[in-house]
Amino acid sequence: MTLPDRAAIETMDAQDPLRALRDAFILSPDEVYLDGNSLGVPTHAAQEELMRAARDEWGGELIRSWNTAGWFDLPVELGDRIGTLIGAAPGQVVVADTTSVNVYKVLHSAMGLRPGRNVIVAESGSFPTDLYIAEGVVSTLPGAQLRLEGVDGPTIEDMLTPDVAAVLVNHVNYKTGELRDMAALTARIHEAGAIAVWDLCHSAGALPVELDAAGVDFAVGCTYKYLNGGPGSPAFVYAAHRHLGQARQPLSGWWGHARPFAFETGYEGDGGIRRFQCGTQPILSMRALKGALAVWDGVDMGELRAKSVALADLFIQLVEARCAGFGLALESPREGARRGSQVSFRHDHAWQVMQALISRGVIGDFRAPSTLRFGFTPLYLRYVDVLRAVEVLEEVLKSESWKDPRFAVQAAVT
Amino acid sequence: MTLPDRAAIETMDAQDPLRALRDAFILSPDEVYLDGNSLGVPTHAAQEELMRAARDEWGGELIRSWNTAGWFDLPVELGDRIGTLIGAAPGQVVVADTTSVNVYKVLHSAMGLRPGRNVIVAESGSFPTDLYIAEGVVSTLPGAQLRLEGVDGPTIEDMLTPDVAAVLVNHVNYKTGELRDMAALTARIHEAGAIAVWDLCHSAGALPVELDAAGVDFAVGCTYKYLNGGPGSPAFVYAAHRHLGQARQPLSGWWGHARPFAFETGYEGDGGIRRFQCGTQPILSMRALKGALAVWDGVDMGELRAKSVALADLFIQLVEARCAGFGLALESPREGARRGSQVSFRHDHAWQVMQALISRGVIGDFRAPSTLRFGFTPLYLRYVDVLRAVEVLEEVLKSESWKDPRFAVQAAVT
Repeated sequence: MTLPDRAAIETMDAQDPLRALRDAFILSPDEVYLDGNSLGVPTHAAQEELMRAARDEWGGELIRSWNTAGWFDLPVELGDRIGTLIGAAPGQVVVADTTSVNVYKVLHSAMGLRPGRNVIVAESGSFPTDLYIAEGVVSTLPGAQLRLEGVDGPTIEDMLTPDVAAVLVNHVNYKTGELRDMAALTARIHEAGAIAVWDLCHSAGALPVELDAAGVDFAVGCTYKYLNGGPGSPAFVYAAHRHLGQARQPLSGWWGHARPFAFETGYEGDGGIRRFQCGTQPILSMRALKGALAVWDGVDMGELRAKSVALADLFIQLVEARCAGFGLALESPREGARRGSQVSFRHDHAWQVMQALISRGVIGDFRAPSTLRFGFTPLYLRYVDVLRAVEVLEEVLKSESWKDPRFAVQAAVT
Repeated sequence: MTLPDRAAIETMDAQDPLRALRDAFILSPDEVYLDGNSLGVPTHAAQEELMRAARDEWGGELIRSWNTAGWFDLPVELGDRIGTLIGAAPGQVVVADTTSVNVYKVLHSAMGLRPGRNVIVAESGSFPTDLYIAEGVVSTLPGAQLRLEGVDGPTIEDMLTPDVAAVLVNHVNYKTGELRDMAALTARIHEAGAIAVWDLCHSAGALPVELDAAGVDFAVGCTYKYLNGGPGSPAFVYAAHRHLGQARQPLSGWWGHARPFAFETGYEGDGGIRRFQCGTQPILSMRALKGALAVWDGVDMGELRAKSVALADLFIQLVEARCAGFGLALESPREGARRGSQVSFRHDHAWQVMQALISRGVIGDFRAPSTLRFGFTPLYLRYVDVLRAVEVLEEVLKSESWKDPRFAVQAAVT
């Protein structure tokens, strides 16, 4: 396969059906932002919606906005909007709390639905908070155990013993970008009698997700990566229709009550997805998310996926051609179909190399101990941005500018 | 006691040592806002801080702002700031999640600290989410029970049997405004060998709170009422120094880990207050809160309390003098020392009366089934606002304008 030159790459941009969407985002012309898988870029609409909520509603109607501006129903309104991006029919998704808190809710729900079983299976390569929360759930349930793929068994498929109640899987691995086959693994989990819980943090908004079609039981995900909701914007939780009214979760706060404003003394959970709510949500952050979600109107998820794979394929091809011999090793699946919307390379000095890239306007991120991670967000990235990123990476490696002493000290927050 | 006339009331404003603080707030000149105990009013500083976070940081530095703008440390920075308002030395308060979620964390912690005991005591008159969450905690602990003051015993003091592990008390009752004696009740709870957990939702920022001095074990509170953080701004949680490193809570997400960015497989909780964090926080909402807290610099909590009591005393005096015979009955303690910063009156048609008040620019709220609730926020209310509110209430009751059919239908969200 011949290496495309600049002209060929510019043609790819000219033919990109999603190219007009870039204008919706607030982007620096001097930078290539390959970290939308960590914090998405704001749209103009997100900023405007936030201003409206802060100035006109909070600063105007004040308390009345809970009714007049629809604040109280935002979690289900935005949940249904996200539902259209992850293959969930209305009434099964709610925006609430954090991914970690939502993992707690759904793992407890799953354990409750399988009373004779006491094991949660998860991945040792999971984003750690999923494991930490699973530990927390296990700590509250006498006899419960957490078993990890890659530690207690080679693969999840090998670990589906009759004592397994729930399996918690990351749809896309946060570090390598490896994509799991959701439909096939969910079917295997169900054959074994267990509940399938999927973490969509690195797939929602990055590629087509079909929760209903795959028969998934529960899912969680974040909204500040590919959904561009803003720093720490509230997470979402999905519960399949068949579990609503059945599933119980112990974070039984007033927003999950069947009649929250009746101020009753005893808890009676809502019969629908609202039961997965707990307390009052951060409305300003939620409204930025509402504005951010508008960009998805009319986006074809098939076109999104095709562009995502093409951007990442181009990146891999150019890096391997132009940066050979400098110690980079691909950590992500080479095959686009097995990959999310990110590409990782291992390097012995990954921290320093990434700092050198960032100082030159190519923004990716570092994951300990030695991963350079690059996210490809099809809504706002161009093929020429990929070329620019590789040119800078080549320059950093060839000039050894990453050895600059100012890149030596690793920050606490990465 | 003679009824003060308008001139006397204007003199009270002229002599108010806090009067200049009103300029920090964005208030409508046509309204009297007596609902700061439900949703506080924005300050100019809060709006500016929010803009800075949204435009310059999210929209500028993007992912780098986690370090450069101090996003990651906001929860402890703001926690310590709130600590100065509630009598907590640094390192014991963190801003995180919602009040409901924080109640869950601290009740689990309390139960874990008293392994031979299995009862949680709470108040039947508590804000309901506290009870719902206590039910949730009890549901995950075999043999645990929830007992309610006013149902299972007349008062908390009578219920402190040797099986009680934790007592959850509201410092100020959300409906009546009744203020509990924190130091005395905490001492009684400790004598009985139990853990004292205080809900400060209606006292933080409303009156002096002395958690350390009272020997409180854990506390929670919200930031969108008297702290003016904005709709649904994140809540706070307090854990006394002596419990840090000892207390365990099962919402063990990555922000509570001793080394969150090491991405370790196993959970090891932070040794300090960060252990009460769970997942990634809503930074935009948190930054509005940061801006809001600036107004407290230099505020004397004694002056705040004196004004709060004086405002409410004036309200009660004027209402009882001018609105006698229209079916209002005081639901709050008459004695200022036993009251928070709010006054409630019972009325058979409380919903309609409140709607009529709101339509005339006097904003209070309704609590089912028959409570008119008025909050008095000393930072921005004037004595003439109290007079205006009573004049309008008198007019609504005398003219029976609350019988207008448009006030007949009660909204779902109140």
